[in-house]
Amino acid sequence: MNFSSKLLENAVYEIALLPGIGKRTALRLALHLLKQPNAQVERLASALVSLRNNITYCKKCYNISDTEICDICASFHRDPSVLCVVEDIRDVMAIENTGQYNGLYHVLGGKISPIDGIGPNELHITSLVKRVKEESIKEIIFALSNTIEGDTTNFYIFKQLEGLEITTSTIARGISVGDELEYTDEVTLGRSILHRVPFEVQ
Amino acid sequence: MNFSSKLLENAVYEIALLPGIGKRTALRLALHLLKQPNAQVERLASALVSLRNNITYCKKCYNISDTEICDICASFHRDPSVLCVVEDIRDVMAIENTGQYNGLYHVLGGKISPIDGIGPNELHITSLVKRVKEESIKEIIFALSNTIEGDTTNFYIFKQLEGLEITTSTIARGISVGDELEYTDEVTLGRSILHRVPFEVQ
Repeated sequence: MNFSSKLLENAVYEIALLPGIGKRTALRLALHLLKQPNAQVERLASALVSLRNNITYCKKCYNISDTEICDICASFHRDPSVLCVVEDIRDVMAIENTGQYNGLYHVLGGKISPIDGIGPNELHITSLVKRVKEESIKEIIFALSNTIEGDTTNFYIFKQLEGLEITTSTIARGISVGDELEYTDEVTLGRSILHRVPFEVQ
Repeated sequence: MNFSSKLLENAVYEIALLPGIGKRTALRLALHLLKQPNAQVERLASALVSLRNNITYCKKCYNISDTEICDICASFHRDPSVLCVVEDIRDVMAIENTGQYNGLYHVLGGKISPIDGIGPNELHITSLVKRVKEESIKEIIFALSNTIEGDTTNFYIFKQLEGLEITTSTIARGISVGDELEYTDEVTLGRSILHRVPFEVQ
């Protein structure tokens, strides 16, 4: 692209580093910002910088948090005997939004993926095992992605917890609400038959 | 959404003000930035702020420019007798990318659109008429969008230029390269028959 301004070219270059944003979208965003009040652009910029520089994570569950211990871990209304293991904080938000879970979380920060150079030591697994040993946790729910990496991570953690008196479960896998059987892949469909649940009148 | 951090919430709010970016995408971008080096986030932020605060426009054609007169207006290799009237600087880039145009530009900054509260006075039309009167311009090419607003703007400028010895033209409108006739709308197809051009062996 032929930019007539170094400032514009630079801004487009930096915006296009964001995931899912190409040069054209970056240009559109840059030109949009040019038409906004200076104050708005400065608010955006300072929000990004202060997010990056000042963010902290909960010391117990590694969820994002402005305080040392996050609101969920600090709450008296949550059940501290159940721990839900998730990949990242987006999953915490997703589960919180369902309103169906009342226990605590443990955010791994990813899943075991040798191809991306992520081994167990890059994740918060040691601290998870330590929590299970030190806190009065009775049940662990694995809520990782339904992929090979997710399953590997589940299995690795399961092995680490062997010998401890604890119930482990994974979130149910099967056909989603609204799915049609004919478009469902065989593995999912096969599993959903294998793990069928008693019929309930809702 | 249930953010566990004010910093994150604030960043997501500011990012989601950008056009075409919803809360979910904003969250994805914010979490991506969290994983990047501080320096990259600071470069992005400062690129945005300095773009907004320091950008200048060419005094002649209102194209974006780091100098008082843009590279195109200042070039000795361009034909100063032809002026291409466009809506905004993205159009300048698009036409420059074709490599088919060697004249100068005049960026209006939009098109007449009463519904959006944009009248002729909000656009750089007076300065266009002044340029035509003062400079040795022989031809004006209207390269505005093929919409009612674009046509209105064309017509308004055409009226302003009445009485001046000048050739005016619009860029050709018709079916695009790769278009199939059966999917082309009637107005476009009708116009493309009306404005047919001599057949050339390419």
